[in-house]
Amino acid sequence: MAIFTNKRKEETELGFGTKNYNNRVRFINLDGRINVKRTGLAGLANIDIYHWLISTSLLNLIIVILLGYTAVNTLFAVVYYAIGAEFFGGVAYGSMLDNFLALFFFSAQTLTTVGYGHIHPIGNAASSAAAIESLLGLMGFALATGVIYGRFSRPKAHLLYSNNAIIAPYMDITALMFRVANYKQYELIETEAQIVLSINNPETKRRDFLQLPLERHKINFLTLSWTIVHPIDDKSPIYGLSVSDLLERDAEMIILIKGINDTQSQMVFSRYSYKAEEMLENVKFTPLKQDADKLGRVSINVNEIHTYHAVEPVKIP
Amino acid sequence: MAIFTNKRKEETELGFGTKNYNNRVRFINLDGRINVKRTGLAGLANIDIYHWLISTSLLNLIIVILLGYTAVNTLFAVVYYAIGAEFFGGVAYGSMLDNFLALFFFSAQTLTTVGYGHIHPIGNAASSAAAIESLLGLMGFALATGVIYGRFSRPKAHLLYSNNAIIAPYMDITALMFRVANYKQYELIETEAQIVLSINNPETKRRDFLQLPLERHKINFLTLSWTIVHPIDDKSPIYGLSVSDLLERDAEMIILIKGINDTQSQMVFSRYSYKAEEMLENVKFTPLKQDADKLGRVSINVNEIHTYHAVEPVKIP
Amino acid sequence: MAIFTNKRKEETELGFGTKNYNNRVRFINLDGRINVKRTGLAGLANIDIYHWLISTSLLNLIIVILLGYTAVNTLFAVVYYAIGAEFFGGVAYGSMLDNFLALFFFSAQTLTTVGYGHIHPIGNAASSAAAIESLLGLMGFALATGVIYGRFSRPKAHLLYSNNAIIAPYMDITALMFRVANYKQYELIETEAQIVLSINNPETKRRDFLQLPLERHKINFLTLSWTIVHPIDDKSPIYGLSVSDLLERDAEMIILIKGINDTQSQMVFSRYSYKAEEMLENVKFTPLKQDADKLGRVSINVNEIHTYHAVEPVKIP
Amino acid sequence: MAIFTNKRKEETELGFGTKNYNNRVRFINLDGRINVKRTGLAGLANIDIYHWLISTSLLNLIIVILLGYTAVNTLFAVVYYAIGAEFFGGVAYGSMLDNFLALFFFSAQTLTTVGYGHIHPIGNAASSAAAIESLLGLMGFALATGVIYGRFSRPKAHLLYSNNAIIAPYMDITALMFRVANYKQYELIETEAQIVLSINNPETKRRDFLQLPLERHKINFLTLSWTIVHPIDDKSPIYGLSVSDLLERDAEMIILIKGINDTQSQMVFSRYSYKAEEMLENVKFTPLKQDADKLGRVSINVNEIHTYHAVEPVKIP
Repeated sequence: MAIFTNKRKEETELGFGTKNYNNRVRFINLDGRINVKRTGLAGLANIDIYHWLISTSLLNLIIVILLGYTAVNTLFAVVYYAIGAEFFGGVAYGSMLDNFLALFFFSAQTLTTVGYGHIHPIGNAASSAAAIESLLGLMGFALATGVIYGRFSRPKAHLLYSNNAIIAPYMDITALMFRVANYKQYELIETEAQIVLSINNPETKRRDFLQLPLERHKINFLTLSWTIVHPIDDKSPIYGLSVSDLLERDAEMIILIKGINDTQSQMVFSRYSYKAEEMLENVKFTPLKQDADKLGRVSINVNEIHTYHAVEPVKIP
Repeated sequence: MAIFTNKRKEETELGFGTKNYNNRVRFINLDGRINVKRTGLAGLANIDIYHWLISTSLLNLIIVILLGYTAVNTLFAVVYYAIGAEFFGGVAYGSMLDNFLALFFFSAQTLTTVGYGHIHPIGNAASSAAAIESLLGLMGFALATGVIYGRFSRPKAHLLYSNNAIIAPYMDITALMFRVANYKQYELIETEAQIVLSINNPETKRRDFLQLPLERHKINFLTLSWTIVHPIDDKSPIYGLSVSDLLERDAEMIILIKGINDTQSQMVFSRYSYKAEEMLENVKFTPLKQDADKLGRVSINVNEIHTYHAVEPVKIP
Repeated sequence: MAIFTNKRKEETELGFGTKNYNNRVRFINLDGRINVKRTGLAGLANIDIYHWLISTSLLNLIIVILLGYTAVNTLFAVVYYAIGAEFFGGVAYGSMLDNFLALFFFSAQTLTTVGYGHIHPIGNAASSAAAIESLLGLMGFALATGVIYGRFSRPKAHLLYSNNAIIAPYMDITALMFRVANYKQYELIETEAQIVLSINNPETKRRDFLQLPLERHKINFLTLSWTIVHPIDDKSPIYGLSVSDLLERDAEMIILIKGINDTQSQMVFSRYSYKAEEMLENVKFTPLKQDADKLGRVSINVNEIHTYHAVEPVKIP
Repeated sequence: MAIFTNKRKEETELGFGTKNYNNRVRFINLDGRINVKRTGLAGLANIDIYHWLISTSLLNLIIVILLGYTAVNTLFAVVYYAIGAEFFGGVAYGSMLDNFLALFFFSAQTLTTVGYGHIHPIGNAASSAAAIESLLGLMGFALATGVIYGRFSRPKAHLLYSNNAIIAPYMDITALMFRVANYKQYELIETEAQIVLSINNPETKRRDFLQLPLERHKINFLTLSWTIVHPIDDKSPIYGLSVSDLLERDAEMIILIKGINDTQSQMVFSRYSYKAEEMLENVKFTPLKQDADKLGRVSINVNEIHTYHAVEPVKIP
């Protein structure tokens, strides 16, 4: 087993500390989120509501909106009922439930400002409550507009990562590599990649974070696909290690990519990680089929970035 | 024909790969979009709806809005009709079609929250459906607000490129050049240009991407016009090539310009390309007429950037 | 007491001037605002309304909205009353106050565009005033949408600073240090810190601003906590000073941190300061408990960053 | 008169060209706009509507909104009138004008979605037109929301420049200087300045743009005021020139300042210029009074940045 030769100089501070955990850890989830839970402070202080609203699933957002809508309408229906159904023109049903429901729908008509008017407030108390509800409706709607715009306009990198990182022959040496593609019809420009290897160090009993130098760390456009290559030469911190060595040391390849989404002219970030379990030896990536049509347009199928084929075993230097 | 002398060092990674296509290719369209089609993944995953909505033509957007408006109104008219026209006060026509149309217009009045009230829901089913539609209307409108703001506020570079790139005498050497102007009444500042030549290499049968060094690659303001100049000296990768050589090798000059739109203080990007077909020899750009009025204001006509006049044939070194 | 050895070279221009005030000063408040009051110019020119609206407390914003809503409704109620209650269908009460209140509520129904219609304008004057009010309502609501979105989407760094900065043994020397943690569930990336010491110079009678070099000034992620360390070696401007020396000279450690909030992909800034009163000697920060669960997730309690324990007195070199 | 000694090296490309105009020119207006008029292209292509809407005066914006509101209402009133007043329930006046006005107000109630309902459409033609108008109203309102938010949230630098630039003794040499202050209650951070001198060159008959090196070109905060100083030493391009020399050569000092508005975390730009007419000799800036109150807060009056007092004539080297 090789000795780490350039540990100190290449060490990178990812902010994960150097503790050697008893459990196996995964610092970066496959969806790019950092796998850390922060507690402390009082109450909801650890949650950023706006962040949650713009990054949660669409289903969650719809549930929150529907629950909020129902809750506010129920609340105002209660207020209106307390004021008295007789102060609402057009409410002429009989039972308590009927009255309550009529006031509930009046509340919805007020909150959304649709205000048909077949039910309408009479007198100061009812009119005041309705005036407040319609203002609240507008403010809530302003909030929803902001959230919807925030979700939509949030700068994102839509990167597809190959399912596996592979150790394969590359030029006349061996390299650790994976592929990425932008799968949306917009451009990602001035794209840069950085790889850090998180690995237990059996000597120091600490977890090291080692920068893996790349053959090329920046490209102008991410148009077709990009094979990101760490040459495993004698300057590489994993020189001489096999995939089973990496597995034993709970290795994780942490990938940081940044680029500019040119629809929005904003910097976007993408994170991904490969645990040793997701690394393969003795295979090679199959080149993507790419061709030009008569209009001079080049096309690719991004799904092909996962494809690899077996090769002669790599001779570990 | 000259040999490429400094290929390796100047090679640039645009992300287009190095394949030598059978067809002629055009990597950058004249509207700046990259001429690549990405397929793969399932369903609509390759399309970014927000991107499409903010970058499609205004006509397309209007069609989408009108179709969506009609579709939602039709859908709710069907729901209301299924509930029964008798649960809608004010719907007192006769025929099925008349009833349906009345409910369709009631739907429109609910979706837009205009809610005149001469038609109004009676009973819980009708009121509930209307309450949901008015909420949906507000959310849809929030979405439209976001899209309209996104379109409007999207940082753009409004650059006009001269119709042709020309090879012309420049100082005491020859240079490849083209002109750009900002044609809008706002400023583009800290503007930088980069040119990459995509060209087939007859020796390696691959497509090379060669950086063309510029005489000046950055200007503080893009106020009048900017002539971007690549000097064809013996360090240039196209030293000794004529336009017909460039044509034969399916050359494309890929232009990347970035600057800051100072109304929005945001970085903007512009791309353009000249195929060999759009390059001219033995001509020279005619200087733009520029003059100062009594208020000290300088004016130019940006259309003049296309203008050139014939000169003595360039002696290819 | 030591002499400042490298004052000139390390001096930093924070823009606070070099005046030696008679009072003790605090340049940065604990909430990060710079403690400067700017007067001059006429009227409200020193206040940026948008800035105020998006950075004031939520309570202040609610008060402003309610006051504005009431004021506009009162104003239009006066206008409608001047036009005459008889020009409003549905206003059929008796007393002046009753009429005024009915018109006030009609105003609210118009401003929010709820428009029930049981009260409605009759004739040109009343209809014109209502048409203007409903337009004003929409514009005011557009404004509110902008403010609410601006508040929500404003890029923020949610940093928790340890209550105290401490002077403690560090490796084989002594260092001045404090801790920060990001307490929200989103990531802060490419985070950089800078520390400037503001201190009275007894020789020149001026206030110096001295850069304090950091052991590490940048980390990739701020995931757990970050201990920011200024080594007090013989190149440090506070080499040989005790906390009581710093107190006497009215020292303030001004901290500037910048990073990228990756929900929004925007640069965020955080400022903080420790006055000499908030610095401690002879203590050491207690390491945060951090552990990995079975899913490989690491958790910390951010409140622990304040915790320290006593150590042997630091021998001032 | 001195010779320009370092012209070539320091020359800066502002994009104004090098033409020597017959009239005196002013490249930068006092409000920071670049004094260039671009014509050409067809129709409105030179105007960026969004740019205009977010940067024009508030009065202009209000006029545009009121005119647009009136125009759309008039247009739909005409459409409704053409359909026939009898298709609108509640329109029961007599004269053509009365009917038209009633339909005009109905249009306003529809466009703003207030929809009282005392006037309401009857039949398909009237209902369809109203459905379209209410959709148009929502879209127009979405547009207005975007414009209002765009105006409000537009990153701005609120810099106050001293009325005059002065040539004054500075340390043991002479310097050209002016002062700036941020007059709003928010912070401008990482502020950088650059000065370019535009001046006619009597030898080449061209206009030169010369970078004037600054004693300090960057400060961390712009908290109090900042005196920006170009030392007129023998490396300065204006070494040996008096204000009357600068006047004769139609000199203009073009100032570019950029910084980060930290409420919005966005880069902002400020431009200003001093013509030779606005430069003074034999005066010195009076230091701003600044003091700390008991809370440790420093206060200044930004109006004082204009103040200067006479000094002994500068001996031109």
